[in-house]
Amino acid sequence: MSTDSYILTFSCPNKPGIVAAVAKTLFEASANIQESHQYDDVETNAFFARIRFNFVGTDNAEGFSKAFAIVADGLQMKWAVRPRAARPKLLILVSRFDHCLADLLYKWRTGELSADIAGIVSNHPIETFAHHDLSTIPFDYLPVTSQTKSQQEAAIWKVVEDRKVDLVVLARYMQILSGNLAAKLAGRCINIHHSFLPGFKGAKPYHQAHGRGVKLIGATAHYVTPDLDEGPIIEQDVERVSHHDEPDDLVRKGRDIERRVLSRAVSWHIDGRIILNGSKTVVFKD
Amino acid sequence: MSTDSYILTFSCPNKPGIVAAVAKTLFEASANIQESHQYDDVETNAFFARIRFNFVGTDNAEGFSKAFAIVADGLQMKWAVRPRAARPKLLILVSRFDHCLADLLYKWRTGELSADIAGIVSNHPIETFAHHDLSTIPFDYLPVTSQTKSQQEAAIWKVVEDRKVDLVVLARYMQILSGNLAAKLAGRCINIHHSFLPGFKGAKPYHQAHGRGVKLIGATAHYVTPDLDEGPIIEQDVERVSHHDEPDDLVRKGRDIERRVLSRAVSWHIDGRIILNGSKTVVFKD
Amino acid sequence: MSTDSYILTFSCPNKPGIVAAVAKTLFEASANIQESHQYDDVETNAFFARIRFNFVGTDNAEGFSKAFAIVADGLQMKWAVRPRAARPKLLILVSRFDHCLADLLYKWRTGELSADIAGIVSNHPIETFAHHDLSTIPFDYLPVTSQTKSQQEAAIWKVVEDRKVDLVVLARYMQILSGNLAAKLAGRCINIHHSFLPGFKGAKPYHQAHGRGVKLIGATAHYVTPDLDEGPIIEQDVERVSHHDEPDDLVRKGRDIERRVLSRAVSWHIDGRIILNGSKTVVFKD
Amino acid sequence: MSTDSYILTFSCPNKPGIVAAVAKTLFEASANIQESHQYDDVETNAFFARIRFNFVGTDNAEGFSKAFAIVADGLQMKWAVRPRAARPKLLILVSRFDHCLADLLYKWRTGELSADIAGIVSNHPIETFAHHDLSTIPFDYLPVTSQTKSQQEAAIWKVVEDRKVDLVVLARYMQILSGNLAAKLAGRCINIHHSFLPGFKGAKPYHQAHGRGVKLIGATAHYVTPDLDEGPIIEQDVERVSHHDEPDDLVRKGRDIERRVLSRAVSWHIDGRIILNGSKTVVFKD
Repeated sequence: MSTDSYILTFSCPNKPGIVAAVAKTLFEASANIQESHQYDDVETNAFFARIRFNFVGTDNAEGFSKAFAIVADGLQMKWAVRPRAARPKLLILVSRFDHCLADLLYKWRTGELSADIAGIVSNHPIETFAHHDLSTIPFDYLPVTSQTKSQQEAAIWKVVEDRKVDLVVLARYMQILSGNLAAKLAGRCINIHHSFLPGFKGAKPYHQAHGRGVKLIGATAHYVTPDLDEGPIIEQDVERVSHHDEPDDLVRKGRDIERRVLSRAVSWHIDGRIILNGSKTVVFKD
Repeated sequence: MSTDSYILTFSCPNKPGIVAAVAKTLFEASANIQESHQYDDVETNAFFARIRFNFVGTDNAEGFSKAFAIVADGLQMKWAVRPRAARPKLLILVSRFDHCLADLLYKWRTGELSADIAGIVSNHPIETFAHHDLSTIPFDYLPVTSQTKSQQEAAIWKVVEDRKVDLVVLARYMQILSGNLAAKLAGRCINIHHSFLPGFKGAKPYHQAHGRGVKLIGATAHYVTPDLDEGPIIEQDVERVSHHDEPDDLVRKGRDIERRVLSRAVSWHIDGRIILNGSKTVVFKD
Repeated sequence: MSTDSYILTFSCPNKPGIVAAVAKTLFEASANIQESHQYDDVETNAFFARIRFNFVGTDNAEGFSKAFAIVADGLQMKWAVRPRAARPKLLILVSRFDHCLADLLYKWRTGELSADIAGIVSNHPIETFAHHDLSTIPFDYLPVTSQTKSQQEAAIWKVVEDRKVDLVVLARYMQILSGNLAAKLAGRCINIHHSFLPGFKGAKPYHQAHGRGVKLIGATAHYVTPDLDEGPIIEQDVERVSHHDEPDDLVRKGRDIERRVLSRAVSWHIDGRIILNGSKTVVFKD
Repeated sequence: MSTDSYILTFSCPNKPGIVAAVAKTLFEASANIQESHQYDDVETNAFFARIRFNFVGTDNAEGFSKAFAIVADGLQMKWAVRPRAARPKLLILVSRFDHCLADLLYKWRTGELSADIAGIVSNHPIETFAHHDLSTIPFDYLPVTSQTKSQQEAAIWKVVEDRKVDLVVLARYMQILSGNLAAKLAGRCINIHHSFLPGFKGAKPYHQAHGRGVKLIGATAHYVTPDLDEGPIIEQDVERVSHHDEPDDLVRKGRDIERRVLSRAVSWHIDGRIILNGSKTVVFKD
């Protein structure tokens, strides 16, 4: 008999014995390691790991956590452990382009995205999304102008706090978060940038790509930081284009890339597969 | 009975009747169209085409060219026609990294690259390339310093002129051509840039890519222009990288991308598949 | 002033002068070629072309068609011409897996798929698709057993005839069409096979792929023929998998491949970019 | 101060405590884990791991091995430990197609392939490879007919034994090894199959691919087993083709895929990244 899985993630300064200490603590708590990834950044001497485990016999999460806290303390760890079945709460921010939203909703409905959707916030009214079944999802229409930006962001933040949102997804939100809100959402806000960063930043990247005559276009999912377009990259992908492709074709092809890059990033985050490493990410996906 | 193939390429302002006029001229010269590509750039109203044809019965290249010159004149064409079997003369410029050179030589030997190698120029002595069979290829060791750059480039240019070089390939040459030489080689000098332009320009792009934490790295083959890293892009490709990859891994993976991107670009150029379109290229490859 | 575009497609035995005759007919009808693709199959000596054109001045489609019919007759062509803006009528057949349906509906709503949806037929009741907005789309619930197959197919065929359906899309329909129905829908019925054909045929290909330990999985869009899994291939794509991937992971990754492969195939068909060449296809996409 | 790296690989029946026991043994031997991968096959209940470590202070490989042998015994492990810098001995078997050979030699010379080449065996004479620098590599010309096959294989086996060959690479060898030799080389003989298995088996797969009209072609590196084309797959890759591609074009594109797929497989094997899992492989590459 064994219990449901847990996900343990941690990072700490590297030194010999970390794995031995962690594995011993798990073993003594009757835990069985099911999947384990680790990475040792030789440049910064930092150590990162993600361990999926379950308990043999009865659940002993509390016992393990208590014992692990002591080990973690000695190793100066940042760490977290949570039941794998726990469903993080997502808040999706979206503007009028809804292809990423459609994809996230579809994957949420099929169970591919094991999260709860705590709400959708848009600067466009709910009619914009008439073809989507939003019947069970709280929707907040929060229009924004340069004058009302700080109030609007305060309203977003209130939603985040009230609903205990774990992850904010900018699913082509098209608005730049203030440095203030970006900082408050550090490490739990994912944006999809419609370009292969560091390629074309700023507005209309597909038109820039067309102007430059590139032969591949791409998209980038990254954590949001106050420094626009410079947040830690989670995932990128590309597709081939040719001289035949007009800017509209690039936009169309781009939609397919964006939705698959964003949904990969979101599901990796949900499954505890991403750990921040300064301005970069460690992604334990294979 | 039919003759060997010819390649006709042209560009001109777009207007109705171009294809009819060209096809009629070919037909009346007893030519049979084997492959045809065209592209109509609606932004600039320019028309581009590449036609491969042979003659039914006896060769009539001269007759066709004479007739076509009149048609071309009326349509304000830039055009060229040449036997497909004609082997362009390549000059390969290389520094100490020889992976692109190795690939080009291999493909030249197997006949995959239907060109003649008019020579290799390097700023490193021939011993650097001891493992390559250069027995039948003229090799010029032309070292260069900031003081001797103009003389060295004059020597390169003399090689180009003396040997009637059709295409100069910068196969990781690592030297920046002067604006003067770049201009003289306009449209017939291909460089391989070890980055997915417009991503990381300048020196050590793989180290830049590592620092930024990108998840894909790439390479770009482009025509050389006086404006470094801004020449018309011919081909690009990418490969996936992860947090595990050190800068050296990126360099290693990059070598594979570079050689395949460069050799595609060179063989398309040789086969008359690339037509310049301002700062972009039209590549007729499928 | 110029008119909307038309798409002309044709195939015929190859001989010199085809392009000249076609281009002349277009020019004399005041048509302007906007895009042109051709292919000469040297094995079968067959010639294939797709030409997009519009008229300079007033529309002259009727005049052109009359003139072209004579040319086409002389060259033993199979041909068709239609306004590009004409929206083909699609019938989507679907079983309980709705990811391809979701994608097609989304792309139809955004206008990316320029077709009309004449109906959806499923062997599952409409409740299965409760989250989709089917308010404006005729839905036929046509359950099927081995006993009722011929009646059910007769009902499908009636829908095809009554609604003048141009293209039947098997969007993970999971039922094998009878040879009879397959024959009647020849060249206008596209299936998505959840494997990289000719890899794993028959049932549960992702489980077969897992059992074999492949490192890439794929999907194949093809025209339906009486010979199951052997119809002319239109498009294929793959994604990387690893030892970590369970059969369920392959199924999940497969969904993404399937929907993008199917939607490419459908949109190329709609845009007249596919011509059958015996048991193969010519796809003019770049 | 720390020593050079070691690679520990093992597989065993899964049970709680494996990682703890291994990590403890490493820690007590003053070893520092630098990189670690593990995989738990839930279908077969088998556990696989690869650990790269070095020693803090002085090298203690002997002490570790002695201690680990006891642990391994208790856990019914198959295991191996070796210095990462140890260079396996490769024997390359090649027929007249030398593109994979050229690539392996190039990567061996640049140090990208950290192995020693113990020899090249070919059924074609050394003149076939005149353009390669084989000056420091033993070359055995071992022609083969159906009559002489067993003697020729005996000669190959003698080379393997005499030179203590660790890995035999069939770099487009084009001969089928007998079941007997295949069995003796189990787990240490890699073949490159010029098709995306299980697609087109047997002879001339690119011609089969052309006949079927596929839109992607591929290659497969796999361990050789007596059951031809059915050995455990290590790596696969694909490239896009179109109706324009003749069989010769597929062969040409195939060469690029083959060499990169084979060289990845060989370098992963050399770096201890592949563990056999019945008829499949576990590849720890990211």
